[in-house]
Amino acid sequence: MKVLHTADWHIGKKLHGYDLLPDQAYILDQILKIAKAEAVDAIMIAGDLYDRSVPSEDSVRLLNQTIAEWNLTEEFPLLAISGNHDSATRLATGAPWFNQSNFHLHTRLAEAFNPIEMGDTQFYLLPYFEPVDARIYFEDPELRTIQAAMPKVIEKIKASFDPAKKHILVSHFFVSGSSKTDSETKIEVGGLDGINGNLLTDFDYVALGHLHGKDALKVDNARYSGSPLKYSLSEKNQAKGVWILETDTGEFSFRELTPLHEIEELQASFAELLDPEFYATVDRENYLSILLEDRAVIPNLMNQLRQVYPRIIQVERANGFETAIETRLKTENIKEKSPITLTEDFFTEVSQDDLTALQKKWIEDGLHSILKKGGAI
Amino acid sequence: MKVLHTADWHIGKKLHGYDLLPDQAYILDQILKIAKAEAVDAIMIAGDLYDRSVPSEDSVRLLNQTIAEWNLTEEFPLLAISGNHDSATRLATGAPWFNQSNFHLHTRLAEAFNPIEMGDTQFYLLPYFEPVDARIYFEDPELRTIQAAMPKVIEKIKASFDPAKKHILVSHFFVSGSSKTDSETKIEVGGLDGINGNLLTDFDYVALGHLHGKDALKVDNARYSGSPLKYSLSEKNQAKGVWILETDTGEFSFRELTPLHEIEELQASFAELLDPEFYATVDRENYLSILLEDRAVIPNLMNQLRQVYPRIIQVERANGFETAIETRLKTENIKEKSPITLTEDFFTEVSQDDLTALQKKWIEDGLHSILKKGGAI
Repeated sequence: MKVLHTADWHIGKKLHGYDLLPDQAYILDQILKIAKAEAVDAIMIAGDLYDRSVPSEDSVRLLNQTIAEWNLTEEFPLLAISGNHDSATRLATGAPWFNQSNFHLHTRLAEAFNPIEMGDTQFYLLPYFEPVDARIYFEDPELRTIQAAMPKVIEKIKASFDPAKKHILVSHFFVSGSSKTDSETKIEVGGLDGINGNLLTDFDYVALGHLHGKDALKVDNARYSGSPLKYSLSEKNQAKGVWILETDTGEFSFRELTPLHEIEELQASFAELLDPEFYATVDRENYLSILLEDRAVIPNLMNQLRQVYPRIIQVERANGFETAIETRLKTENIKEKSPITLTEDFFTEVSQDDLTALQKKWIEDGLHSILKKGGAI
Repeated sequence: MKVLHTADWHIGKKLHGYDLLPDQAYILDQILKIAKAEAVDAIMIAGDLYDRSVPSEDSVRLLNQTIAEWNLTEEFPLLAISGNHDSATRLATGAPWFNQSNFHLHTRLAEAFNPIEMGDTQFYLLPYFEPVDARIYFEDPELRTIQAAMPKVIEKIKASFDPAKKHILVSHFFVSGSSKTDSETKIEVGGLDGINGNLLTDFDYVALGHLHGKDALKVDNARYSGSPLKYSLSEKNQAKGVWILETDTGEFSFRELTPLHEIEELQASFAELLDPEFYATVDRENYLSILLEDRAVIPNLMNQLRQVYPRIIQVERANGFETAIETRLKTENIKEKSPITLTEDFFTEVSQDDLTALQKKWIEDGLHSILKKGGAI
């Protein structure tokens, strides 16, 4: 069978204050288009459907519409779990009814041990869980970290393996050695950091959520799908998309998504940025990180830039800020100043203090002896 | 067919700070027991399932468990709407899947016009809506109040009446002339207050939510079920329960519920309240409104009472507070005080000010002339 793997939608997430819901609706629609074009048999969603445990009403509306369209209208079986950003309790609303139409949403550890059998495959849906959940479930007070709990979890899952079937794990955690970006919430428990990838070798495929880069983990049989959108500037060069897996061959390949608005870095001077000839060459609707080449203070900078570029996520200086003395050198006519005044200015600039009368006397004496013939100081 | 009518669960509501979730779980279980004992064919829930638009996780868990048990385990068809306390958007989560198992949950005005046909009856589920919803739905900018919108809503509902069927409206609003309690949120729009009951005459039964007393409205064919629990002291004498309706005869009757903890008013003195012989006669677990017969200030009153009565919702004085002078009369030996001191005390008590030297002189003179023989003043 053919399965699509996505995760980390983070519906309701904001990017530097910008509401991403239109971008998210757009990209979810693209994922649906891929599912239809590829005629997949099921869609796996590996957690963090929402960005917050209490999502906004608009976020709830988008997720509800999306899953209803995918599962009820388009009739795709869905295999989903809650991630660390979701409230398992809130996300579970409706779940007992969902499986009537082949929408399996697991939000509790106990549910991981009931495989969903579909086609040639047993799907194990292991939601994000806390060590306390494992302690209660296994009645073992020693399970104080996810790392300690995971071998027991995987062992119990494997106990129900049907050897005639393929085995896919859908889960949401950090696998040791994976590489992170800025938009993921760190999950580190008890000073340890991540699950040993060796635990996962008996699965034909592990559909992971949590890390936002598709290449965060390079293990033969396991992949992060990554988020469908770039959720931080650090992801600007990442390809975003979904994995398509063929369960009979175990082969999987990536399908890229094109966002409604890209995240883009732009380096230019202020004058260029406001020059119509320049900005005609730029997609001004993109989320822009601007590297400004100017070094001067520019009054009302952001407002002026946002007139042209509505989605600026940050402005940094490519060459640093100019110092106050640089500003003054540009704005004052230093040739008209006497050597003593220039020296006084320099002293004040550096020391943030005025010359005392004695200091001024020393400088005058020094300048006189240098300028010999007694030029004006 | 036989139908049960309930409403105004307000899951998550607190009573004077006390968490009512255990009471709510208990009473919902009782409603289920009635439904089973009566072998009803459907259960109508007329809005305000939650107390808040963003309910707590514990509230979400209780509602999710309740509706899953009623609909999936016990297989009761459910006919429910959102009330003014519910977030229609949040409550709608899962709704497109619910009707696969005969759970019909309407949260948008537009859904009211699609009757649910079951047995001999057409059920119209009209959720709480705002005037703006009616303006958009009917494309009529003049609909600025619920009162203005409701005739159009009812007219459109009646247009789909099948004359061979009974017609039941499930809704959530204030009908003019109904009597209120303290625990309902006022809905008054545009200065008008309530829907004209004459609009409802063409229904065989109108299952209302919003008001918390079952007798709030006395119209032949319409009833508020009332809340299943007493949600304010003003409801202390109300019978709480559900209506059972026979659609073929149009007859309906009330089934009372017994709460986990009653709301009770208790009048006694402080000494009695703390006397084991007295409190052995009281259900100390009840929510108690105490009318204290003492008039004195009692230090640490609430803490002392709560040692015995864990659910005190208020303490009032049956006979008012004693004045400061009454307290002093009890605690000071006034017989040892001279007439001039007593007069000074009285003046200070009444005026909150001290006597001036002149005023004191006048009083001394007055007292001397009264006491003639020159007794000590």
